[in-house]
Amino acid sequence: MSQAFFERHQPLLEQGLKAAAQRGYWSPFAESPSPRNYGETANEDGRAAFEALRGKPFALDLPGAEGTVGGEVSPYGFPLDIAYPRVPAGKLIEASARALEQWRRAGPRDWVGVSLEILARLNKRSFEIAYAVQHTTGQGFMMAFQAGGPHAQDRGFEAVTYAWQEMSRIPGVAIWEKPQGKNEPLRMEKRFTVVPRGIGLVIGCSTFPTWNGYPGLFASLATGNTVIVKPHPAAILPLAITVQVAREVLAEAGFDPNVVLLAAHEAGDDTAQTLALDPAVKIVDFTGSTANGDWLENNARQALVYTEKAGVNQVIIDSTSDLKGMARNLAFSLALYSGQMCTAPQNIYVPRGGIDTPEGHASFDEVAAALGAAVEKLGADPAKAVELTGAIQSEAILERIERARALGLPVIADSKALAHPQFEQARVRTPLLLRAEAGNEAIGQEWFGPIAFLVATDSTQESIRLARESVIRNGALSFSAYTTDDKVAAAVQDAAEVAGVSLSLNLTGAVFVNQTAAFSDFHGTGANPAANAALSDTAFVSNRFRVVQTRRHV
Amino acid sequence: MSQAFFERHQPLLEQGLKAAAQRGYWSPFAESPSPRNYGETANEDGRAAFEALRGKPFALDLPGAEGTVGGEVSPYGFPLDIAYPRVPAGKLIEASARALEQWRRAGPRDWVGVSLEILARLNKRSFEIAYAVQHTTGQGFMMAFQAGGPHAQDRGFEAVTYAWQEMSRIPGVAIWEKPQGKNEPLRMEKRFTVVPRGIGLVIGCSTFPTWNGYPGLFASLATGNTVIVKPHPAAILPLAITVQVAREVLAEAGFDPNVVLLAAHEAGDDTAQTLALDPAVKIVDFTGSTANGDWLENNARQALVYTEKAGVNQVIIDSTSDLKGMARNLAFSLALYSGQMCTAPQNIYVPRGGIDTPEGHASFDEVAAALGAAVEKLGADPAKAVELTGAIQSEAILERIERARALGLPVIADSKALAHPQFEQARVRTPLLLRAEAGNEAIGQEWFGPIAFLVATDSTQESIRLARESVIRNGALSFSAYTTDDKVAAAVQDAAEVAGVSLSLNLTGAVFVNQTAAFSDFHGTGANPAANAALSDTAFVSNRFRVVQTRRHV
Repeated sequence: MSQAFFERHQPLLEQGLKAAAQRGYWSPFAESPSPRNYGETANEDGRAAFEALRGKPFALDLPGAEGTVGGEVSPYGFPLDIAYPRVPAGKLIEASARALEQWRRAGPRDWVGVSLEILARLNKRSFEIAYAVQHTTGQGFMMAFQAGGPHAQDRGFEAVTYAWQEMSRIPGVAIWEKPQGKNEPLRMEKRFTVVPRGIGLVIGCSTFPTWNGYPGLFASLATGNTVIVKPHPAAILPLAITVQVAREVLAEAGFDPNVVLLAAHEAGDDTAQTLALDPAVKIVDFTGSTANGDWLENNARQALVYTEKAGVNQVIIDSTSDLKGMARNLAFSLALYSGQMCTAPQNIYVPRGGIDTPEGHASFDEVAAALGAAVEKLGADPAKAVELTGAIQSEAILERIERARALGLPVIADSKALAHPQFEQARVRTPLLLRAEAGNEAIGQEWFGPIAFLVATDSTQESIRLARESVIRNGALSFSAYTTDDKVAAAVQDAAEVAGVSLSLNLTGAVFVNQTAAFSDFHGTGANPAANAALSDTAFVSNRFRVVQTRRHV
Repeated sequence: MSQAFFERHQPLLEQGLKAAAQRGYWSPFAESPSPRNYGETANEDGRAAFEALRGKPFALDLPGAEGTVGGEVSPYGFPLDIAYPRVPAGKLIEASARALEQWRRAGPRDWVGVSLEILARLNKRSFEIAYAVQHTTGQGFMMAFQAGGPHAQDRGFEAVTYAWQEMSRIPGVAIWEKPQGKNEPLRMEKRFTVVPRGIGLVIGCSTFPTWNGYPGLFASLATGNTVIVKPHPAAILPLAITVQVAREVLAEAGFDPNVVLLAAHEAGDDTAQTLALDPAVKIVDFTGSTANGDWLENNARQALVYTEKAGVNQVIIDSTSDLKGMARNLAFSLALYSGQMCTAPQNIYVPRGGIDTPEGHASFDEVAAALGAAVEKLGADPAKAVELTGAIQSEAILERIERARALGLPVIADSKALAHPQFEQARVRTPLLLRAEAGNEAIGQEWFGPIAFLVATDSTQESIRLARESVIRNGALSFSAYTTDDKVAAAVQDAAEVAGVSLSLNLTGAVFVNQTAAFSDFHGTGANPAANAALSDTAFVSNRFRVVQTRRHV
């Protein structure tokens, strides 16, 4: 059965291998929710499926469950009232270890076939997942659909592609024949078996549970490991659906469904720590705070730990050929999902003396005004704006906006509450843009949410130095620069390469610094403190399995 | 210049890429010291070159040197009296960081070209290196030549091959064109730059300074990192020659020779710790004790740490088609370099009730007698034996033989001192083989040196269980089994795959369990406590560099 899965998906897998090598545009899953891609009733069906989940126990039959846990509340202002089975950490480990005994022997074709079938079925449930993502993370529907559905599936597919690439280069068997001068050669048969590490733990985040969760989940699964998925208590549903689909495919293929398990738990309990420190857990994939990521790296020493943590994203404005386009593009990046993205820009450096534009010199204040106006404009029509900003994921982020205001810095654009036409209780906010001077200590930390700083510097040279040093010290997942000067572009690129952060140059159109495309853009570099791995590359998958050989004379 | 190096070595590199994929027999460097390979006068020239080094300062002009350090004594009984420049750790880091600024920008072709030219020149100095290895490690000349020369160079070449494979799959530039329905597609140029981690530290061991040192050295160098080589104070010379050659090639290619530095130091000082904890050191490659390896893994948290540590190697005897061949093969493995190999067998499990052979049933005592006789026979002609055993590397190993004797276990073959016909003071010992019962706690630890145990078990089933559990708990770099029963072979293979150790089946001829061949056998698996990486595979190289991209509209 799982061999049939492999054969079914092999043509697409071959395309993926080529795409990952060439890094042009390629996507296995349609990003447009158009009926042409997903069927005429897909949206209604998905919404109905989501509504049908509310107020009920979630259909997941996990071994050793003791009662339920839940309590998710939509950032749009209503409780989901979904109860998930609660399984003690020890029971999850036991069941996962048992399932590993069979799964580890299945081999790469089965692991990959099952993984790709899960992704294909997740794609069919993209609308349901979109509503689940929207009403746990607060994303606007379109982002919830794209980032939570096909783009997340793309990133999962990408991880499986790399896993297959690395495993398939290990020959099953080799004949080794060493010449012995005039004597008969020495001749041995060597068999190479790909073996998994053990149990993989995926620790989900509250803002992009599927997009950030799928790479680790599928990288571990496709290399023969079993996986325990531990969602953030505020965003369980998208990963619960994912686990449900995975278990359905595993069972159909004749495997123990416990190869993939869900560890839903109460906020503030020690489930994550207990699981992460268990000797049977050999891989941890984590997205979240620097404090928790550092804790895992320092304590889960028995495991390979892949972390994506906080960062302070940087923008350098030196000059531009399109001031309005630049302002529009940056304003969009600040407003998109209310800056609740690990890639959202935060510190925007502009020389105190202003910049060159096609219309002549623009002073710092003129740049600030252009950016402020662009931010205001995006918020002018609340009905449209809310689709862009979505809702604020947590009270902590609202409080952070207040703390930023309390810094007492000059306000370029103030954060405003917008009324959501559909959800009265939704927490909707426009971006807060403050003016800061270079050297202000407050901007050396991450202000996760719709909070950014226009930073006045002595010169572009100082801007580059500040950006480079901040990336090295605080980490960053995105870095963007505007310049019409090739020498400046080269200097910025050099700074990016020394600091280890990817660079976007002169984005003034429909590509935004906070977006990356699977199979083309690496998300994160693994070379600065914001993340110790990139999504996805060889290094992300190649240590999740090992090779054991058996040699004998023939 | 370094581009010319790349072109010079590219044809061999292409062969290496194919060999690593197919894993048949292939070697870029001739293992036979025959004049046909190395020239009529190579041996004499090499010996003369070695002799010329003795009693003098070593020619290495390192920045910031403060006095000298040395004190190596040949295990064959004479001091080398070579003085190496002593450079404080801080000065080494400074010089390495400065050299990195230029080296990091050179790019993969230069890094690989320089690395392969270094290896080619090391190959030309194989005899000199052989004498240096012999008179620091105590290896017999032939092993010192092969393992210390061409085989070490093979492993270095293999690491460069993997590094090139991984870096060359990153396209320099890609055009990303995303369709936009009826509108113009979005079009971006994406440039991908391979960037190194920073400074690599290679911590050498006293027994195989080049063989164990080259993979990490060349994996780091070929991926754009600078390298500080810290030899064991008892085996500086082979790595000092290596660093000398590297610096010569770097200078010729127009690079700062400080891309490769030597950190010679006094035994017992804190040079290794100071270097390993420096924030600029991003990669550590270590071979040595479990205590030191664990310390590095737990403390050098800013670095990727690749370790090869202690293990307890396992042999299972279930049945054999050739009792004498088996005994001869095992005896050879025990005597080879006096068991001072990370891959030397230690615990040999035999059912208490004996085993099946073509000549009928052989009792445990008969198996023990066959093995004991084979060990005695190898030592019968001291002039021949010393070439196989070499000399005992350190006093600590002599003391360990005494401690093993003091366990009070029945002696199957006693360790004897042999007279070396050429070096009167050489510490030469034959293997000590003791009889132990399954469950004896003493055999759960590594007895590095010519010490092994024939372990009586209830059955082959128990032997397999004991071996599997020992590998999981204590680690192992080799695992060997003798059986004529396919079911037993399958069970042993399964145990090997679960425990994560490579298996050799029924070695009765000229291949020994303690030897692995570059490009065919992975050395170590990275899947048990003896080593966290394999030599060499994708995982060994792919995280030593990162990729930084720059994208812009075109």
